[in-house]
Amino acid sequence: MPGVVVSLNDRKSGGKEGDDATTQAGRKASIQPLVDLVQPDMERVNRMIVSRCGSEVEMIPEVARHLIDSGGKRLRPMLTLAAAAMCGYRGDHHVTLAASVEFMHTATLLHDDVVDESDRRRGKLAARMVWGNQASVLVGDFLLGQAFRMMVEAGSMHCLDVLSHAATVIAEGEVMQLGTAQNLETTQDEYMEVVRAKTAALFAAAAEVGPILAGAPKAAISAFRSYGNNLGLAFQLIDDALDYGGSSQTLGKNTGDDFREGKVTLPVLLCYRRGNDKERNFWREAIERGQNDDSRLEEAMRLMHEHNALADTLARAQQFCELAQDALAMFGDSPHKQALIEALEYSLMRAN
Amino acid sequence: MPGVVVSLNDRKSGGKEGDDATTQAGRKASIQPLVDLVQPDMERVNRMIVSRCGSEVEMIPEVARHLIDSGGKRLRPMLTLAAAAMCGYRGDHHVTLAASVEFMHTATLLHDDVVDESDRRRGKLAARMVWGNQASVLVGDFLLGQAFRMMVEAGSMHCLDVLSHAATVIAEGEVMQLGTAQNLETTQDEYMEVVRAKTAALFAAAAEVGPILAGAPKAAISAFRSYGNNLGLAFQLIDDALDYGGSSQTLGKNTGDDFREGKVTLPVLLCYRRGNDKERNFWREAIERGQNDDSRLEEAMRLMHEHNALADTLARAQQFCELAQDALAMFGDSPHKQALIEALEYSLMRAN
Repeated sequence: MPGVVVSLNDRKSGGKEGDDATTQAGRKASIQPLVDLVQPDMERVNRMIVSRCGSEVEMIPEVARHLIDSGGKRLRPMLTLAAAAMCGYRGDHHVTLAASVEFMHTATLLHDDVVDESDRRRGKLAARMVWGNQASVLVGDFLLGQAFRMMVEAGSMHCLDVLSHAATVIAEGEVMQLGTAQNLETTQDEYMEVVRAKTAALFAAAAEVGPILAGAPKAAISAFRSYGNNLGLAFQLIDDALDYGGSSQTLGKNTGDDFREGKVTLPVLLCYRRGNDKERNFWREAIERGQNDDSRLEEAMRLMHEHNALADTLARAQQFCELAQDALAMFGDSPHKQALIEALEYSLMRAN
Repeated sequence: MPGVVVSLNDRKSGGKEGDDATTQAGRKASIQPLVDLVQPDMERVNRMIVSRCGSEVEMIPEVARHLIDSGGKRLRPMLTLAAAAMCGYRGDHHVTLAASVEFMHTATLLHDDVVDESDRRRGKLAARMVWGNQASVLVGDFLLGQAFRMMVEAGSMHCLDVLSHAATVIAEGEVMQLGTAQNLETTQDEYMEVVRAKTAALFAAAAEVGPILAGAPKAAISAFRSYGNNLGLAFQLIDDALDYGGSSQTLGKNTGDDFREGKVTLPVLLCYRRGNDKERNFWREAIERGQNDDSRLEEAMRLMHEHNALADTLARAQQFCELAQDALAMFGDSPHKQALIEALEYSLMRAN
């Protein structure tokens, strides 16, 4: 998709040109620098996650670890760790809060699968298909409780405020989504509001608690909150596009999941609004009435191409990535800052 | 049931005999003194509950208020208010924590109804029957999030610790219950462990946070925790007995709900173990295989009478009430103390 997604670092005017030589358009961005920088802390997070899944009630660690061991990228706790480090935090509580953020996320996934009646998650059977909806609801509640216990251990009332607020906003987003689900008359504004609440709120909180722990000034806290929020918005839109093959429309392992579940996402909304009556009828049949076999998925992808729906979804994701990068502009160069910026580029490249 | 349930105040030796004249066996105990004492604070709790159900997402207050307006007794927040007052607390945070405790309880009920596939709750259609399981799960999550936000507002890390711990224990209890449900081989110990976790833990926490807020000494905090825990244990056993008509075996509005849902409760476990082979077969058919029509309910109640199962369940409840009363023995006489003790008697009398 030339002309739409460019390297974010091209926008940096001034600065040390020499340092940017390797970040020109065309370079392969990677998440690896971020992974490497937080690796020692992340190992502690992983150990804490395993130990806090423990319970004398056997089923709890079984269900929790089914999901936790299934290879999520742990992007949200990485944000907490990187933000804390970048603000010079020297304590241990960033590890506790990072684990707590991942537990909040895992609890949401367990409840989501019940709400969406999903069969699979991260390439495995969803927990509810193995242990039932009941266990998924209750183990989700357990993990949410453990998340709060860890926040209490971290001892920062300000962080507790930020994360408990995020917990309510996420739930609000999920309830909003019940209203927009399979509803093709959802406006783009309404859809973006759902994304902000159900996805971006936790990214924002995860990033924000790092500088709070570090005692960073208000402006730095806001900057990380903005970085997290905008990365979260971009992340969801990129996921939406990937579900229809991304800009290249090649088939990935999750291609078509949203379509088959009748999910209203930004590419669908764009395509629906831009289509003619016959096309809108196609979408109603697919999304509202469940006519979504493979031949219809192919037709859906053709329409997305015709109406530029994926390219425009990714262009919006790129705008959010640019906002995220701008949010960090106030900080001097550092390996962490570079890694966080490269993570934005990497996210965009996933879909190209 | 003469000889089993006696007035708790009969156990008080010494003290002012004159004051006890009105509390001899046979007097009608009431919850009203407790209700009256906390009434001004409870009005503030009720206002806070209504305001914190609010959300721009319309469905949230609808679902939340369906349950909240359905006339629960708000016993748990009463404990918080009374305990705080009895320990001389002069601030406002007991109101916030009391509301937070009620939100935790309401969230649990919403999730419980999904897990149990219940049709009704407090004489109304369960929320899940009106808005679906999805909304019940998610609005429960929202209320749990709001509960934590209120705890953060109250500003006591110690109270946050107690209540977040209770949240995980409740979830553990609910998961344990999945394992004991419809399993007649559950031991009494296992059953009491479920009750301790899923019911008594929140009573204990609700009572404990009052003295914590008041800065009361450790011994007072432990005393209220013990009062709450034992009241909670008794409360659940009394509920179990009431479901089969209580000691008098008269039919109340909820009689037979547990039987029809195939719930394993203490009276059932006692009856099952004490019965002969034919009776045990009856229980297996009723509880494990759903043969639970009205004629079988009648037979179940007959067996309970024959094996003294309800009387013994209530005798155990009384023991827990006695422990609860003993826990308060260290405090001097006061209207709050008297009201909390009378609440124990009242609970026992409900089932007689």
